[in-house]
Amino acid sequence: MSTGTSAKFAASPELVFETLSAYQRSAALRAAIELDLFRAIGEGPGDVASLAGRCAASTRGIRILCDYLTVIGLLAKEDGRYLHTPTSAAFLDPRSPACIASIARFLGNPVLYEPYLRLTEIVRSGRTVLEGGGTVEPENPVWVEFAHSMAPMMAPMAAPLGTIALNGSSGPLRVLDIAAGHGLFGIEIAKQHPEARVVALDWAPVLEVARGNARAAGVLDRYETLPGSAFEVEYGGPYDIVLLTNFLHHFDPRECVRLLKKVNGALKRGGRVAAHEFVPNDDRVSPPMAAAFRLVMLAGTVGGDAYTFREIAAMYADAGFERVSSHALPAGPHTVVVGHAA
Amino acid sequence: MSTGTSAKFAASPELVFETLSAYQRSAALRAAIELDLFRAIGEGPGDVASLAGRCAASTRGIRILCDYLTVIGLLAKEDGRYLHTPTSAAFLDPRSPACIASIARFLGNPVLYEPYLRLTEIVRSGRTVLEGGGTVEPENPVWVEFAHSMAPMMAPMAAPLGTIALNGSSGPLRVLDIAAGHGLFGIEIAKQHPEARVVALDWAPVLEVARGNARAAGVLDRYETLPGSAFEVEYGGPYDIVLLTNFLHHFDPRECVRLLKKVNGALKRGGRVAAHEFVPNDDRVSPPMAAAFRLVMLAGTVGGDAYTFREIAAMYADAGFERVSSHALPAGPHTVVVGHAA
Repeated sequence: MSTGTSAKFAASPELVFETLSAYQRSAALRAAIELDLFRAIGEGPGDVASLAGRCAASTRGIRILCDYLTVIGLLAKEDGRYLHTPTSAAFLDPRSPACIASIARFLGNPVLYEPYLRLTEIVRSGRTVLEGGGTVEPENPVWVEFAHSMAPMMAPMAAPLGTIALNGSSGPLRVLDIAAGHGLFGIEIAKQHPEARVVALDWAPVLEVARGNARAAGVLDRYETLPGSAFEVEYGGPYDIVLLTNFLHHFDPRECVRLLKKVNGALKRGGRVAAHEFVPNDDRVSPPMAAAFRLVMLAGTVGGDAYTFREIAAMYADAGFERVSSHALPAGPHTVVVGHAA
Repeated sequence: MSTGTSAKFAASPELVFETLSAYQRSAALRAAIELDLFRAIGEGPGDVASLAGRCAASTRGIRILCDYLTVIGLLAKEDGRYLHTPTSAAFLDPRSPACIASIARFLGNPVLYEPYLRLTEIVRSGRTVLEGGGTVEPENPVWVEFAHSMAPMMAPMAAPLGTIALNGSSGPLRVLDIAAGHGLFGIEIAKQHPEARVVALDWAPVLEVARGNARAAGVLDRYETLPGSAFEVEYGGPYDIVLLTNFLHHFDPRECVRLLKKVNGALKRGGRVAAHEFVPNDDRVSPPMAAAFRLVMLAGTVGGDAYTFREIAAMYADAGFERVSSHALPAGPHTVVVGHAA
């Protein structure tokens, strides 16, 4: 994605044409993932006939699709054969441990996708066209899909977030993981700290995914689940650490403060909240991924946004948190914002 | 659009995420055009409240949309106000004579858009999921939309194409404009050459758009229309020049040769056919716009493709044309391929 102010761009009708055609890029990559094309590329030899055979697809379709993916930087072509780029080898071939191809299922989910077909109406009204609260409606099944398919993209952020949230703690720790989803963030705390006990809060069907991941990570004996709405369920506690991962951005500032007050009330004195967020700069147009993410909140929620650090710090202060700090994660566009209960 | 072989790209999960989210770019630009946002930007002062008022939209929606458009290079932001970039000033503000914003209506037309929701199925089968011949089905109303909304994007190519097709001709000329659409190419010939008479061939409802443009250009007295299918209707003639603009790519090579033979039969000896095409290089992955366009043909047709010059020259030769030459147009991704009737 381009970063941007005017000076960087010469006048270009191509930019207009390509932006209006950009939906084709998403469709092409989604189709390639669904056809298991990137596995076939990795296994070689990469000529059209072999690829068509492995993907059970037409030669015309494979030839045009592979050329298109080459144009957009997701394959390479040499002497008529298709090869991985560094990106497709690492992140799209299912044989790679870093593969994130599953995110196509979440990003291509109709609940996320369809509001964009009515974006004009959304900009007019200022809220999602989805019913009720949009993507944050109770028990929305899209979060089960999220828990399954977005985990590989979130996984590299879990270890650094865990280190930031633990901040060298020792001894028994109680941790609440709000909107746990796949559970990877809370599970990581349990992995890094053998005396941590984690309570994961989310909708019941989502918690089944988190429990499966906790079992696989060998921490199920220190892992509990708490089904329900983060705004309504009794948290228990008191906790040493509360994780709020990819959650605040779904709500308006008033709702965020209400939630943060509830979190504060469930923390021990001096305990920490750690929010994992897209945090744009004060200009709200950089860095590009964090800034662009705000459109997703416009399309899918009633009042959500990705907040600047200044805004999050103000909400933390309103909710009674002290010593608020920002920690950019090394890989990816996310930031962890930590506050301490008074 | 990036051009591409592997060496140019470092491994990037962002590229995967952004490609799968690229449909949001198309939706954002389409919404901005539908809201007449770029006119409001041009008229200033460009703060969120004024823009929301002018566009009859919410402040939340305008704020997030304008920031998003800034991230993707289609607006600039300074001190909290939004301004044009060179691209949006020239090509998106309706007050600019070069404005091409209307192409959003064609590129966002469901007939073009919806096949991408089923692209996996299309790659498997090798043909469009649209009924019959897809976008080239007889009387498909999408071509009326094309004639109306794509004309501003095609207009800058008309003059250089006219010059190439006329090639210094003098005296009375008969010209057949196959798949005339908006008619701008044939009309341009009539404008450049006062002794040229043009016959425009297309579906009847499309020809109404072309006639309107011929009237506006003051050449209606030398402009006739011929409604029907280019494959079936009797061309009349003989002609000095036949224009085949943005047409061959909808068909497979066998059909192209059949059509070109019919064209040859309607030309005087030594007469010229001039095709206006996306012509990728032999590698089929460059230049990017011509190469990427082939996906549109996969999605929307049964056997179409954007052909290399080598392939077009072979088809021309099969159809009996001689002295085949390629002429890249100065602005934009198109090429004119000229052949001469033996």
